Amino acid sequence: MIEITAEEYARRLAAVRTRMTEAGLDALLVSDPANLYYLIGYNAWSFYTPQVLFVPASGELVFHTRAMDAPGATRTSWLPAEHILGYPESLVHRPTEHPFDVVGDQLAEQLPKGSVIGIEADAHFFSPKAYLALQRALPGRELVDSQELVNWVRVVKSDTEIALMRLAARATTAAMTAAIDSIDVGVRQNDVAARISQAQITGTDEVWGDYPAIVPMLPTGAAADTPHLTWTAQRFVDDDAVVVELAGAHRRYHVPLARTIMLGTPSDELRRTEAAVAEGLADVLDTIADGVPVDTVAQAWTAALNRHRLSKESRLGYSVGIGYPPDWGERTVSIRSGDPTVLRTNMTFHIICGMWMTGYGYEVSETVRVTGTGVECFTEFPRQLLTKGT
Amino acid sequence: MIEITAEEYARRLAAVRTRMTEAGLDALLVSDPANLYYLIGYNAWSFYTPQVLFVPASGELVFHTRAMDAPGATRTSWLPAEHILGYPESLVHRPTEHPFDVVGDQLAEQLPKGSVIGIEADAHFFSPKAYLALQRALPGRELVDSQELVNWVRVVKSDTEIALMRLAARATTAAMTAAIDSIDVGVRQNDVAARISQAQITGTDEVWGDYPAIVPMLPTGAAADTPHLTWTAQRFVDDDAVVVELAGAHRRYHVPLARTIMLGTPSDELRRTEAAVAEGLADVLDTIADGVPVDTVAQAWTAALNRHRLSKESRLGYSVGIGYPPDWGERTVSIRSGDPTVLRTNMTFHIICGMWMTGYGYEVSETVRVTGTGVECFTEFPRQLLTKGT
Repeated sequence: MIEITAEEYARRLAAVRTRMTEAGLDALLVSDPANLYYLIGYNAWSFYTPQVLFVPASGELVFHTRAMDAPGATRTSWLPAEHILGYPESLVHRPTEHPFDVVGDQLAEQLPKGSVIGIEADAHFFSPKAYLALQRALPGRELVDSQELVNWVRVVKSDTEIALMRLAARATTAAMTAAIDSIDVGVRQNDVAARISQAQITGTDEVWGDYPAIVPMLPTGAAADTPHLTWTAQRFVDDDAVVVELAGAHRRYHVPLARTIMLGTPSDELRRTEAAVAEGLADVLDTIADGVPVDTVAQAWTAALNRHRLSKESRLGYSVGIGYPPDWGERTVSIRSGDPTVLRTNMTFHIICGMWMTGYGYEVSETVRVTGTGVECFTEFPRQLLTKGT
Repeated sequence: MIEITAEEYARRLAAVRTRMTEAGLDALLVSDPANLYYLIGYNAWSFYTPQVLFVPASGELVFHTRAMDAPGATRTSWLPAEHILGYPESLVHRPTEHPFDVVGDQLAEQLPKGSVIGIEADAHFFSPKAYLALQRALPGRELVDSQELVNWVRVVKSDTEIALMRLAARATTAAMTAAIDSIDVGVRQNDVAARISQAQITGTDEVWGDYPAIVPMLPTGAAADTPHLTWTAQRFVDDDAVVVELAGAHRRYHVPLARTIMLGTPSDELRRTEAAVAEGLADVLDTIADGVPVDTVAQAWTAALNRHRLSKESRLGYSVGIGYPPDWGERTVSIRSGDPTVLRTNMTFHIICGMWMTGYGYEVSETVRVTGTGVECFTEFPRQLLTKGT
């Protein structure tokens, strides 16, 4: 089994602390479950109640979670049990109290007045109520937005992480194969989603599937002009174009993938969109390599679309890796014009050529690793409209 | 198909506005996706980017979401398209900007200085960064925690909602049946989770399954002393006790259910726990009825456990209904000592007798509706340790 070694955890923590020093932080409070997993290996479905990892500039890390979940942190993280503190069950879901009233008091003992403390101000499971509780408990200290500090450390993957993503890709392949096999005229959307989900979690005999951070998406026909709608029992009909967006996951690492599956005969405009996207994606994959600015990649895409008199408002892709619901994106690099990032080897992106046109949609995507000379795609499906039936 | 009528949406909104008046709110900003679905019917996997519904004390509701998701709101909600405003794609995931910088400016036009504005300060997808952006954009207005105002309106279900939960229960039954069928010595945990997930989403020929807010949980053997750990590829072995916690969902309404499945021969202490829980759950179900205080229900449970020299720190249950990841609970009523709620007809609860003992675990649960004279259970599985094999 691929192991995240103590040395790797130490390197991750050191990289975080280097950025903390640069940002002038005396401590960092980490709430994002993906960042918790990255730093201490903690992995459980406990993020619906408040939890926070205390990362001082030097010294021991302390994880605060609900009492019920403390044993799970002992089982899955490398932290010693004495640095895992459970807050009382009685504090869960109280209208006028918050667990961080208590946690904040404990933090106050570690953080003298004048301390500058980074918080994850835009993490999904760190609420304003939690923030205000910390603010009350920590008078005289400054709480500042860390601006995704840990997420930015995650952008360049280690070789171990890449190996885990290659395993996740096998679940992706199984899931997309299940989608292609099961989509057909007369079949309910939910029955296809069920087959995809089964394949995602089964994985293969060698690689078990973890739960993906997002459910399978199947925008179909006219509704495919809209992303992010989830399935119903609607049955596929002749000439439906079905956009399939899914990911395989293994030990929280994700490899997303999108393809469009055609039942029957595509319209001329869908064929034109397919051709434009194929050209744009090919240009993008040709452009990506260590040292290339993200902006250059975005321009290659825009130029190809422009040649076909098309445009796309939304970003072309984003950094991926560890994910928890509701997102497998890392909330760092966005592949779009103006992003200041320069590509580095072992950055990983979901490049998603999603065209949500009026009355129809078309998507093709690849999850890729940047290499010294180009790009590695994690999966191998034809980059075209996949036609099925007559 | 069961329809949520315009009249029902109007009743829901009126109930919210009554509470707003009581709380002295000039407006309410709703971010919780379950509350959005409840009030306007909006349903999409868009909650990983900021979104907010503006509910003034009187006048038109306005929904602010990412430009990409605005068409999905037009498709699924009853709001007219002109009251669905998409913020620019360029604002997604910026380190020093937030979409609510723009949304806040728009809200400022509607909300004169001196306005008191309720926010959902502990909702999962409303971040401190979003809160601080609103605070900056709305000087001279007071932002106050609504303390789950809409969630509390959701506690008593309409007959239509109860009908939807009865449909969800069919997916629950299919999923628990799949769990019982597939758990066996030598089988990987993930293969069981895959079968459960497939059954959850397939539902039945009549009732399609929606995605549950939480993945299937299968804490097993010694690790069953810990809730909320998700599956791995570990294979079940002889004498494993497998705790299964899952839900069926239909149109976002949830019916959760837990049972413990025994492979081989249970230990004496597991049998003793089973007997205590059976007695406690029976007493609880006998106690529940319209007009009974929640505290009385909690006491019935504690008394039964005490007779068996057992205790449980965590709450016995919570209000359920509409759910989005990461939680199917409503974050309102908790069945525990001291909760001031008095039961009313059509309240619905997940009563979860979860005993996380040192080295093993045991769970039995029921999702119930309070009736005038007692209780309706949504599913029908024996309330005991389910033994399998020899």
